[in-house]
Amino acid sequence: MFDIATSGELLAEFMAAEKGQRFDSPGRFTGPFPSGAPAIFASQAARLGARVAYAGRVGRDGFGDLVVERLRRDGIDVTAVQRDPERPTGTAFVSYQADGSRHFIFNLAHSASGQQTLDENALEHLSACRYFHVMGSSLASRGAIEILLRLVARVKEKGGKISFDPNVRPELMVSDGAREALLEVLRCCDLFLPSDADLEWLANDGEDTDATVARLMAEHPMSLVVLKRAAAGCRAYTGDEVIEAAGLVVDEVDPTGAGDCFGGALVAALAAERTLPEALRLANAAGAHAVSVLGPMEGCSDPTTLERRLAAAGDIS
Amino acid sequence: MFDIATSGELLAEFMAAEKGQRFDSPGRFTGPFPSGAPAIFASQAARLGARVAYAGRVGRDGFGDLVVERLRRDGIDVTAVQRDPERPTGTAFVSYQADGSRHFIFNLAHSASGQQTLDENALEHLSACRYFHVMGSSLASRGAIEILLRLVARVKEKGGKISFDPNVRPELMVSDGAREALLEVLRCCDLFLPSDADLEWLANDGEDTDATVARLMAEHPMSLVVLKRAAAGCRAYTGDEVIEAAGLVVDEVDPTGAGDCFGGALVAALAAERTLPEALRLANAAGAHAVSVLGPMEGCSDPTTLERRLAAAGDIS
Repeated sequence: MFDIATSGELLAEFMAAEKGQRFDSPGRFTGPFPSGAPAIFASQAARLGARVAYAGRVGRDGFGDLVVERLRRDGIDVTAVQRDPERPTGTAFVSYQADGSRHFIFNLAHSASGQQTLDENALEHLSACRYFHVMGSSLASRGAIEILLRLVARVKEKGGKISFDPNVRPELMVSDGAREALLEVLRCCDLFLPSDADLEWLANDGEDTDATVARLMAEHPMSLVVLKRAAAGCRAYTGDEVIEAAGLVVDEVDPTGAGDCFGGALVAALAAERTLPEALRLANAAGAHAVSVLGPMEGCSDPTTLERRLAAAGDIS
Repeated sequence: MFDIATSGELLAEFMAAEKGQRFDSPGRFTGPFPSGAPAIFASQAARLGARVAYAGRVGRDGFGDLVVERLRRDGIDVTAVQRDPERPTGTAFVSYQADGSRHFIFNLAHSASGQQTLDENALEHLSACRYFHVMGSSLASRGAIEILLRLVARVKEKGGKISFDPNVRPELMVSDGAREALLEVLRCCDLFLPSDADLEWLANDGEDTDATVARLMAEHPMSLVVLKRAAAGCRAYTGDEVIEAAGLVVDEVDPTGAGDCFGGALVAALAAERTLPEALRLANAAGAHAVSVLGPMEGCSDPTTLERRLAAAGDIS
């Protein structure tokens, strides 16, 4: 029985060395870094002690070795991580712009990642979990959507909970079914983890954040919504209360993966029966630590790191 | 009417900064550099003044912009270079090992490059050439083979010549039909440009280099074979004579593309009606210059550069 299981894109990421660096002329890049939103989430949860299982697919190449070895070293069960005999491991090139935005070149849909399959054995293996986490970024192809919806259904059958980070990224939402799949997971999740941008995308005309959350909780069976507000911390909505938890002040080095780390820490803490305020506090610290470290998955943190960061921020609880 | 036309893989190449750098841990890379063996050949030929046309396919991304812009800047006709609406531009990661060998990770077969098509208009456009050049590295998929064989047939119908660099690279010769296609182009080429390794691959048991060439020239209609011997220069076989041309001494910085530049300079010189000894001399100089510059296509040279390099090597002809 796993505390947390997840499935989705695995890739090797290369980061442009200079701000504003272009993709159409030679420059310097650092990488490969293991990456993929669900992988960052899984790594963070595992580092906080959660028993985590992962399903995905990489190539039989050095980049694939890198990704699988990282998951394994974090203690993640990689039984359901496949190696494609022919297609290369997915890649992403990222360049930070002067205005803080990021430019990407992805090779994902036609990489090993896009060829992921899930047999009955793997489905049984992964669905034996307390929480199954879905990243909206993974709802990027018909194949990936089918795998995630089968997992969600099986986990619910067995009494597990679904956590969902919609993580709406227009550049990955290219398939026709992605929006529909996102709304389907939204309808059946227990724990919903949107950002302000995600809620804007889901809002009706003239509806503010609190009203959107209240409507979603009234329409769907979700019992907890945690709104991720980056540097501002987070706001949790349960049936009867709203809890604000302030963010930690850190020097931002690299925002990639911060929201994924926030989610990984939150679900790991809830799976470990921590109280909601404790879970929010750890999630804020994990997100803050993540932005202070260069590299998508390099900012995942263990409990000692989080306590040290909380202490440095003046939190002595 | 073009002097030279060619078709094949286009890609963006990333070079590991350190010797022996691994792909399964983060490091520094330089790139993207425009690359692809036929593209390096084409760039070298164009820089020596040949009218060159190219057929290939890249993605609608920054890497594709880089590659197409480089070809265009070299004066190459890119009418038949397609942009794939969905697949990314092909990539190669290369790491030089301490023993001089190279490790690669390719994303080519499933990239835009692997989706290349050629319609009747493009076939007519490209086949109006004096020389059509085939790189063995391009015979890597059924689709690419079909395109090249159609071009070869049309060029021959119209009276053009076929030049062929077998460039046997085991890691790219994955398709069943590659070996067969290579032998088919060998049977119909006019100008054959093997390396020692290529001739070993073609040799019968116990047959030495000269004997292999003699047999190939007896069995097939090829009228000129130029054996590329890297730093040792080259040896040309025509119907009645063998001409040796010594290599130039240079400090090797990066061997990638040297053979392609050799071929590009040779065919450009022959298309410009230079004598064979002159063509060999320029080809040696182009190969030597290429190894002195970092980057697959960065070492392509113009006539001034070649004359300067020849003068520095003591060649005052």
